[in-house]
Order: sequence, then C-alpha cells, then structure tokens
Amino acid sequence: MEIYFDNAATTKPTEAVVNVVAQTMINEYGNPSSAHIKGMEAENILKDARKELACFISSKDDEIIFTSGGTESNNLALSGFAYRNRRSGNKIILSPIEHPSMLSQVELLKSHGYEVLFTPLDKNGLVDLKKLEEIIDDDVILLSVMYVNNEIGIKQNIAGISKLTKTKNSNIVVHSDMVQAFGKLKINVKDLGVDMLSISGHKFHGPRGVGALYVRKGVKLESLVKGSSQQYGLRAGTENVPAIAGMIEAAKEVYNDFSNKQEKFSILKESLVSSLEKIDEVFFYVDNDVCADHIVSFGIENIRSEVMLHALEDKGIYVSNGAACSSKKKKKKGTLSVLGVEDNRSETAIRVSFNSDNTVEEINYFVDELEKLIKILKRYVRK
Amino acid sequence: MEIYFDNAATTKPTEAVVNVVAQTMINEYGNPSSAHIKGMEAENILKDARKELACFISSKDDEIIFTSGGTESNNLALSGFAYRNRRSGNKIILSPIEHPSMLSQVELLKSHGYEVLFTPLDKNGLVDLKKLEEIIDDDVILLSVMYVNNEIGIKQNIAGISKLTKTKNSNIVVHSDMVQAFGKLKINVKDLGVDMLSISGHKFHGPRGVGALYVRKGVKLESLVKGSSQQYGLRAGTENVPAIAGMIEAAKEVYNDFSNKQEKFSILKESLVSSLEKIDEVFFYVDNDVCADHIVSFGIENIRSEVMLHALEDKGIYVSNGAACSSKKKKKKGTLSVLGVEDNRSETAIRVSFNSDNTVEEINYFVDELEKLIKILKRYVRK
Repeated sequence: MEIYFDNAATTKPTEAVVNVVAQTMINEYGNPSSAHIKGMEAENILKDARKELACFISSKDDEIIFTSGGTESNNLALSGFAYRNRRSGNKIILSPIEHPSMLSQVELLKSHGYEVLFTPLDKNGLVDLKKLEEIIDDDVILLSVMYVNNEIGIKQNIAGISKLTKTKNSNIVVHSDMVQAFGKLKINVKDLGVDMLSISGHKFHGPRGVGALYVRKGVKLESLVKGSSQQYGLRAGTENVPAIAGMIEAAKEVYNDFSNKQEKFSILKESLVSSLEKIDEVFFYVDNDVCADHIVSFGIENIRSEVMLHALEDKGIYVSNGAACSSKKKKKKGTLSVLGVEDNRSETAIRVSFNSDNTVEEINYFVDELEKLIKILKRYVRK
Repeated sequence: MEIYFDNAATTKPTEAVVNVVAQTMINEYGNPSSAHIKGMEAENILKDARKELACFISSKDDEIIFTSGGTESNNLALSGFAYRNRRSGNKIILSPIEHPSMLSQVELLKSHGYEVLFTPLDKNGLVDLKKLEEIIDDDVILLSVMYVNNEIGIKQNIAGISKLTKTKNSNIVVHSDMVQAFGKLKINVKDLGVDMLSISGHKFHGPRGVGALYVRKGVKLESLVKGSSQQYGLRAGTENVPAIAGMIEAAKEVYNDFSNKQEKFSILKESLVSSLEKIDEVFFYVDNDVCADHIVSFGIENIRSEVMLHALEDKGIYVSNGAACSSKKKKKKGTLSVLGVEDNRSETAIRVSFNSDNTVEEINYFVDELEKLIKILKRYVRK
C-alpha cells in the first residue's frame, strides 16, 4: 500500500510525460540556436510549446518565458522587474505568506532602495481588500500575491485584488505565483487580471527543472540569467527542450477532462475534511472554505508533525509537515506563524495534497490509520 | 548519411543517459526536501551524484553546486562572487574571449562599482602571462579564463595562469569555464589550481537544463536564484534529480576508457587539419597547436559561412558558423573579432566539433564534399 498525499511538494510524472522527455532527448537533440536543420527542429518544438502553453492561460505566444522552475520564475518576476523599473517608483507590495522564493528576495530589494510592504490579511489569511487599498499609492510599481498558498492552500481572490489594485493605480504590475494553482484551477490571465504569473512543471506531473513565467507584453524585465540572447533576451542559456516539451505534455493531460478532475478534487476534500472534523484531536488553522480543494492542512493536538509524518510513513502514507521547501528546517516565518498560530499548534501541522488519481478509498484508509496513530501517540505526550 | 560535427553546440544524449533520466523520473519522484522516505531516496541520489562528480574533478562532495546549466554556473561564479566579496577589492579580470554568459555580466559588474580588466592575449588568443602579471594587483579579487574556447577551441594554460595569479596575489579566486573542456580533458582542480569551475551536462552527452559549479571550500558566493535553502543556500529551487543523475551517467561514460577517447580526438583532428591544409581556399585563424583536439575552426576565402553551412547541411553534414549561442545573430564581439580578424575573413568561419563516436571516414566524406562545394560556390563569388 502506497498513498502519495504530498503532491504540493512534487508530483509523479506520468508515463506520457516521461516518454515525451525521453523521445525529445533522443530525436531532437539539436541546439535551438544552431543555424542548421537540427537546431531548427528543436526551435520548432520550443515555438509549439510556447503556443500551447499560451493557449492554456489565454496569453500570446511571445509572452511565455521558459525557466528552470518556479523559484527562478518568481525571482525573474520580482527582482527582474524591480531592477528594470527603479525609476517608476520605489514600493513593492507582497503578501506576507508568499513562497520562500518570493520572500527571500525582500532583503535584496531593500538593499536596492525599495520599500517592501505586505498585504494585510484577515484571520483566514485572505488579503484584506479594504486595508490593501489604503497602502496602494503612486510609488507602488508591483504587487504580488500567490494564487494558492503552498502550505495550507488558501486561495486568494486574484481577480478582485488585481481589479482593486489597478483601479487605485493603473501603472502597478500584478504578479501571481501560480505554482500550486496551475493544473488545479482554470487560469486565464485576462479574467484574473495578472501581468505576470509563475508556474513549475513538476507540480503538475511534468518534469523537474522546468517552469515558465508569463510576462504580459509591455512589461519590462531585466534578465537574471545573463548570456546569449535566447528567449527574447530575458533568459539566457540553451533552452531545455525535452523538459519544456514534457511540461507541455503534462499541461495537456491535467487540463484534459478538467471539470471532472475539479469535481474529483472537491469530492476528495469534502471526504477528508468531514472525516477529520469527527476526530476530537484534529483542528484546522483556517476555514476550509477559503482553501483550494487539493490542499488540506490541519493540526493534531499535542502530536508533533514529524512524529506523525514518520508514523504515517510506516503505513505507506506520504504527507508533509508544512511545505517541503521548509519542512526539514525549523520554520521561522512560515504561513502559520504569519497567521499568528502559536508554535505548539503550528508544530503539529500535517499537509495533505492531492493529485487527481487519489481516491476516496485512500482517504478512508488514511483517516483510519490517523485515528489509530493518534490513540497510540497521545499516550506518549507529556502533559 | 548524417554527420553531426556540431558537438560544441550540443551533443546527442546516449541511450544510457536517456534511460537514467526516464527511470529516475519514474522511480525517484520525491522532492529531496520532503522529510519522508520518498524525499530521502531522492536526496540520496543527489548525495551520490555530488560524490561522483567530485571524484571526476578531485574535489570534495560539498564543493559541488548543481545548476540549470553552464550559463547559470558562469553567472553564479562571476556575479555571485562579485556581490558577496565587494569589500575585498574592486577589480575583476576576465579573458576577452569568454563565453557570452561571462561577458554579458560585465556591464552589471561595472554598475556595482567593479572595474573589469581583460587578460592580454597573444596572436593565437593565448593569455600572455607576462602582460597578465602587470595588471594583477591587490585590488583584484577574481580572475576567470575559459579552459577551451567555444568558438575556435583555443586551450589555455590554466595551471600556469592560476599559478602566476596566485603568486602575485594569493587572495585572488580563480574561476574557469570548463563547459567545453569537461569530458574532453582530464580535470583536476588541484593540478589546475582553480577555485571554481563551470560545467554543462548537454555538452558531454548528458541532459539539457543541468550543469554544475565547483566552489572550493572557503570561497563565499551570494546565491543568484533565491528561495529555500537547497544546496547549501547557494541555489534555491527543487533539485532536478533526474537530470543530475543523467549528467553523472554521462560523465561516467565520457571518462570511461578515456585515454583511448583522447587518442581518438587527436587522430580526428590530425586527419581533418591535414586534409584542410591541402585546400587552397581554406585558412586557419590561429595555430592549430594551441587548440584542443575536439574543436577545429577555419575560414574559406570568399565563401560566407551561412552559405557553406546550408550547402553542407544538404549533404547531411552539420557544422556551425561560430558558436551556436551567437550563430544566428550578427556577431559583434566574438572571439575572432577580439583576435583582430577582419570581418570578411571571420564571416567565413566554419566550426567543426567532434564527439568520440565521430570517425575518420566521416571526416573524409566531409572534406570531399567541402572541396566540391568550394569549387561550385566560388564561381558565384563577386570579385
């Protein structure tokens, strides 16, 4: 029995994705920058990939920049924008519960003379629009809010945030980290009102080491990886054609029969949450209504998450204690801490994250084992 | 008939490499940052990969940083070092015939207050040690010279350059772009006296989108891709485990039976150069003795390289007009231009670059076709 409930950390690539990567490695080994036919063939795959990805988010082909992953996409969106647009203003607004690949740039931006403001949040971690309005002024050049939070799944009202922001100052560029959202939610850059968005291949059954940044035409960035003039001069380095082709294959698969998959996620979440609600020791950090369907986070009174994680692992169940990116380190500034959750409660956090092949049977097995483990483990808790 | 002589642009991954990538994607899909067994398995592959790569260059395991490729490695080595070591001095020395992923950082470094000096070269493009000595002073913090030049194959005396540099100022950190050297030459960081070196997987039959930077213990860098604390805090982002495993497989293969492969390259070069020397219209830009065995560059009087490249392509022969990275653009500051080659001669450059599976038969076929094409094409040359 192996139940993989850690899909927000990374997903298993599908057979078709692996095949596309392998076949592209073998057959399309040319460098897109080479002038001969081998290069042109590789370049054509890139062009098709841009077109197909653009189609999924309703953007234009040449608004897609391929990167080495979500972290690099987020770096390019934030620092790349900040370096290039210094003269337009000196304030940047982020939500305080962004991924480390956003928050870790804050010190650097400050050292470049920027003031970084954080969006006020309500008790559920949602951006408080009224209070946000108060901090937006003419000096703000960029606002970035993650669509689906990676640690506990909070789903922000990106369209509303963008509309408010642009009404207050139409020059502000809106970026959203959609690494946890792409493949799980419909993404339309026009409906959402975003000027940039980041995605990562391995979060939706694509290859690792590849991601993309959508950059609306007219938004100017400074490249962070410098070299030759690949990708409109915004990302140097030989393009990773096999991984890009694999990511597009993954996107096609996740968005195929999509409404049924969304329905599936909704059923999985309802099933898990309703079962967890019946367990006395389990509590939730935010209202589950504000969260996306594929990430469920909860605490267990007095049982530290590492202990539970490894106990579940022995049963063949893989979950996470918080985000993978920070799960091995003592977290200092994770989402729960920002939301004011006390250490003794945040340290018991378990994150369950689904893919569309997970089943209600897996959830039932998980909840059964969880209940048994709670009974066993709570005997060892020091009062 | 298909003859691929553009191995300095990119190489065809071997079947074993493709299999390692595919199998790692399928079986080891965990995120190395995850605390459960799936994460640990992935982390163990990373650890083994570090150990094995370290072995090839005689470094320590924890001196290896995996990156998204040669370009990123070069960026991290140069800008990452410069940002972190501002207080140690304000001068950086580069050879003027570095790859664009080095030279494109110069303006940025200047904007950060650095003075960038260029190594004097002799007529063959070799660093002039005597003149180099004159420009090294106490303000220099970094020197970087590419081991094998990507455009025409000039092979620098890295050990000699390093020794001289460190004798003059022992604090200087020496970096070398070994993207074209790794897998073709024996690399020993101690013998060569380098503190950092860059490699790229797809230049030695490994996957695209992966590379590495060796960073000697004690050398401090600022990370350029910021986020979580992967890779000793020097390169954030989920590690590309399948590509890293594939790159290590490729390294094992290229360094297997290595002396025979070196002998093979030597035979290929001798065969090609001696045949080319018999063709009246062919000329060389530098003495072939100063070049590595796997890259041969030459000009053909009055026949522009694009014309010849496509004519050869029709015969199933793939070569390059200069470096792939710049071959589609009108080059402005390529190696030949730095060496003072006039435009009408540099614009006829053909680069032939080998892998160890190329054969003397392929070279004979190539030279035959080349001679025929020269006869045909020169009739169309305007005098």
